[in-house]
Amino acid sequence: MRTSIATVCLSGTLTDKLQAAANAGFDGVEIFEPDLVASQASPEEVVALAARLGLTLDLYQPFRDADGVTEAEFEGVLRRARAKFALMQRLGIGTMLVCSNVATATIDDDDVSASQLRRLGEEAAAHGVRIAYEALAWGRFVDDYRRAWRIVELADHESVGTCLDSFHILSRGHDPAAIEEIPGSKIFFLQLADAPLLTMDVLSWSRHHRLFPGEGGFDLGAFLGHVLRAGYEGPLSLEVFNDIFRQTDVARTALQARRSLIWLEDLVASTSAWESAPDPPTSLPAVAEPSAFDFVEVRADDTGEVDVLLGQLGFTFRGRHRSKDARLWTEGPARVVCNEQHARDRTPTMAAVGFEVADPTASAARARALRAPAVYRRTLANEQELPAFRAPDGTEVFLGPPASSADAAWVPEFEGGHGGPSALLTGIDHVNLAAPWQCFDEAVLFYSSLLGLAAESSQEVPAPNGLVRSQVVRSASGSCRLALNVAPLAWDASGFPQHVAFSTDDVEAVARRAVDRGLVPLAIPQNYYDDLMARFDLAATEVEAMAALGLLHDRDASGDFTHFYTATIGGIFFEVVQRRGGYEGYGATDAGVRLAAQHRPGLASH
Amino acid sequence: MRTSIATVCLSGTLTDKLQAAANAGFDGVEIFEPDLVASQASPEEVVALAARLGLTLDLYQPFRDADGVTEAEFEGVLRRARAKFALMQRLGIGTMLVCSNVATATIDDDDVSASQLRRLGEEAAAHGVRIAYEALAWGRFVDDYRRAWRIVELADHESVGTCLDSFHILSRGHDPAAIEEIPGSKIFFLQLADAPLLTMDVLSWSRHHRLFPGEGGFDLGAFLGHVLRAGYEGPLSLEVFNDIFRQTDVARTALQARRSLIWLEDLVASTSAWESAPDPPTSLPAVAEPSAFDFVEVRADDTGEVDVLLGQLGFTFRGRHRSKDARLWTEGPARVVCNEQHARDRTPTMAAVGFEVADPTASAARARALRAPAVYRRTLANEQELPAFRAPDGTEVFLGPPASSADAAWVPEFEGGHGGPSALLTGIDHVNLAAPWQCFDEAVLFYSSLLGLAAESSQEVPAPNGLVRSQVVRSASGSCRLALNVAPLAWDASGFPQHVAFSTDDVEAVARRAVDRGLVPLAIPQNYYDDLMARFDLAATEVEAMAALGLLHDRDASGDFTHFYTATIGGIFFEVVQRRGGYEGYGATDAGVRLAAQHRPGLASH
Repeated sequence: MRTSIATVCLSGTLTDKLQAAANAGFDGVEIFEPDLVASQASPEEVVALAARLGLTLDLYQPFRDADGVTEAEFEGVLRRARAKFALMQRLGIGTMLVCSNVATATIDDDDVSASQLRRLGEEAAAHGVRIAYEALAWGRFVDDYRRAWRIVELADHESVGTCLDSFHILSRGHDPAAIEEIPGSKIFFLQLADAPLLTMDVLSWSRHHRLFPGEGGFDLGAFLGHVLRAGYEGPLSLEVFNDIFRQTDVARTALQARRSLIWLEDLVASTSAWESAPDPPTSLPAVAEPSAFDFVEVRADDTGEVDVLLGQLGFTFRGRHRSKDARLWTEGPARVVCNEQHARDRTPTMAAVGFEVADPTASAARARALRAPAVYRRTLANEQELPAFRAPDGTEVFLGPPASSADAAWVPEFEGGHGGPSALLTGIDHVNLAAPWQCFDEAVLFYSSLLGLAAESSQEVPAPNGLVRSQVVRSASGSCRLALNVAPLAWDASGFPQHVAFSTDDVEAVARRAVDRGLVPLAIPQNYYDDLMARFDLAATEVEAMAALGLLHDRDASGDFTHFYTATIGGIFFEVVQRRGGYEGYGATDAGVRLAAQHRPGLASH
Repeated sequence: MRTSIATVCLSGTLTDKLQAAANAGFDGVEIFEPDLVASQASPEEVVALAARLGLTLDLYQPFRDADGVTEAEFEGVLRRARAKFALMQRLGIGTMLVCSNVATATIDDDDVSASQLRRLGEEAAAHGVRIAYEALAWGRFVDDYRRAWRIVELADHESVGTCLDSFHILSRGHDPAAIEEIPGSKIFFLQLADAPLLTMDVLSWSRHHRLFPGEGGFDLGAFLGHVLRAGYEGPLSLEVFNDIFRQTDVARTALQARRSLIWLEDLVASTSAWESAPDPPTSLPAVAEPSAFDFVEVRADDTGEVDVLLGQLGFTFRGRHRSKDARLWTEGPARVVCNEQHARDRTPTMAAVGFEVADPTASAARARALRAPAVYRRTLANEQELPAFRAPDGTEVFLGPPASSADAAWVPEFEGGHGGPSALLTGIDHVNLAAPWQCFDEAVLFYSSLLGLAAESSQEVPAPNGLVRSQVVRSASGSCRLALNVAPLAWDASGFPQHVAFSTDDVEAVARRAVDRGLVPLAIPQNYYDDLMARFDLAATEVEAMAALGLLHDRDASGDFTHFYTATIGGIFFEVVQRRGGYEGYGATDAGVRLAAQHRPGLASH
């Protein structure tokens, strides 16, 4: 399908926005009037630039406060509209968005609004353009798309149609099913936006918090299905007012926006048959949710301290890579690669996360179709070639086949180590990544669209110097869980440590083995253990045993969770967790205690 | 009155928080349980530290989910409570906050809650402590302070009282007048918080957006009046959950918090008589709202380019300061000091703003009582000594007497220039300051508490790379207006220019004179003028005349506004404005066009 984006979604000047939209692969743009008004480029320059870039100018928007006014005021509306229609002629734009009146309407009467729209339509037709009337969620009288369509029907003019905006409809909880009753040819335009499910006034929600499809909580697949079944043949156009996207890198935002529509088209394509549509939605290779973590990779100039820590956690040195300066450590199915290649002066950080997927080639094709940036790793003959992509937070995401019961196919490339005897660890439970605030929503869309990981509700964890927002995205089975953490603004985000949590069925044994091997667990205050006793009615001896090993503990109605943390090395630390029963959390109280224990006054900066 | 602050208001470790509270002059603190649980300091260390600092430990909080539960569950509640009462004994804390049940209540019955509170009270009494029951705004059954008080009355136990929290009462719009029906001795504790008037779910509002008194929209003076008239004799205690205060400098936040209570005490002291109160609120020297701007000061290593610009705007060189490396420029009552002292390598920025107040000595005494940090300027004999204070945004605020019809008393210290012939400017209309996001709320409190400037509703102005939040604080008469601007997060805030807007009754004459003298006004796009014509039905010749001088124009129902901007030099630019009729705005649309015209891609950083 054709795709378009409103210039208000993007940062920069109008010409920056057009360039970025074209580079990201959009077919057209909506011109948001304030962007044109503030631009030094004349309408003729805009037309010429769009032509060179291969972009169509699909919509001029918004025209406000047109209907439901007195006849005296309507004279002013017509005068304004004539000026804008003339401008649209200069721009070669065929459709103008007319919003339902917010400020100046005094007459709550469909016939009056219809009559005024009809006369606007006549004026538009005289200029060779048309108008698309849209119900704003906070319109003075018209705030429902069904009423806007009734008024358009009453206006009964070929140059007057309606515009549908998913935010205005879904934010109000209006049932979008009635869209199918509107003839497709009278839906002159379609604007798409997602949003987090917030409880706040709809105007602020709309102006600051809209998101690209797939990043929020609206069911845009179902919404778009109704619009396409109505016979709409225009472009899918994004109109997203978002405080972050307004200020971040325009090329990156445009690409993220384009990805959201590729994802949405696929979602719709896969749920209905569209043979009869003239421009049906395109589908992607099917999403395959990962069955397990394949490995994590730590990179540093010198990973020595990490190697020591892994040894204490029970990992075995499995060998050095044949052709790369990297070492593999394993404990059961948990695999950690310590990579010293291309890492000059770098302290230890999480560099890559590998996922096991049923068909890496198909998953990689999907990722490429979603325009995920590919990561290049030099691979020699006889080495496994794992496709890899760079996530918005900077992590390299590798896609490998499911490991056999023995081991992952690439393990034999590491030579000179020895097999691991014991296997107290059962794998990787979750990986905690730091997501800079600039790319949080983009990261959610990346992991969900590429890997089918779904967002759970987010949590806020208090650290001594701010709230950390933590959003888990996970596979339905729970086999792969990523926590995306947004550090408080005042922090130097690069100093925010990431971590890997290994799973076990006997956390006490792992902790005791580690302490015997010299591990000093993260120092948990005695106050925590006093509180633990009060919270869960534990015996003093039980709690003393936990304290001796630095173990933390949480419970809910379905089970419990015992775990410990290592110290931090550079930008990384490890956790070992044991889940019992149906406990699905991550020890939210414990995370706050952990952040306090990790707190160094120098960590914050402002 | 005694003052206290909940540790959750402040950033850092528990011991950091105690230090900062004591340094800021608080008498006590509320211990927020998660701060203690995450602290390495034992209860005995906390007691010893508080004793050394002279802080009392006034409250242990919160104890959750205690009432309205089944008897089986209440056994667990009692067990938890006993552990906490024992902990309070170690801490020497006499009162525990018990919140109305949010999560586990299943019985909506005042008698059941009262019976459970009574038994908690008996247990508390056995430990020599007491409990203060508070209705949370989002309590499962009890969400109104009047109902919480009814339950406390029914509990009828000397160790069971109520706790009042201004947020929980005012956020719900509950009338606080009925507080006066509660005997003061049964109000065991008082928590104060302000908040912006937002429309959103009350839990998120409370957890993220609370502010210190005077920074938000609640009428805390009236609220506190009710509490004091009820006979409450405990401390005024702040409980402010705020995402920004949690992460910013703890010493600074504590001082801001203390200032908010000094302001609030004064507000209450000045509106009622409290002779009979054992510990009545303290009053300050009366606030005196400034009658005019006295001057602005630009500081730079070399202010030469600013001097040229001022000359083009019609300013006259009035002389060089006797003892300082500073020059004065005036045009009518508008005075600008260009200061090259202590400015090595500094590009031009706004350094100081002078206000004319009726009694500078009294205003300075008020500022000192509000703990505003004083600014020291070396003053020689025979020179005017203007008291000065540093605002949170870094601006130095000077307080001078009203200028005579001739000139400000300090003007003769500048020698060697000449008197100004013409006077097309009528003064300084407003000053735009950049407020870093970390100190925005603090800045609002600073200007309102020291100078009586009141906050108007805030606006958001779109720049090409983000929304600028602009909050005007102004004197009631409109004679002094400051716009506090918060730059988008991704910007390097130090690169965000500030500006001074001069007022005139003939902006065209000022602009023409400036252009004749070589000024190149800020380049306003032709698209702006095309839109202006459409918006206001102006003739093409009128608009062409404006465009030739770089004039911008806005209108509302009460009047209109014509203005122009200069180019930016370093971190400062100037504006000249003419208001006609009752126009009270600042040309919000025009500000967006201005920000686009000022936009340089290098201005953003992330």
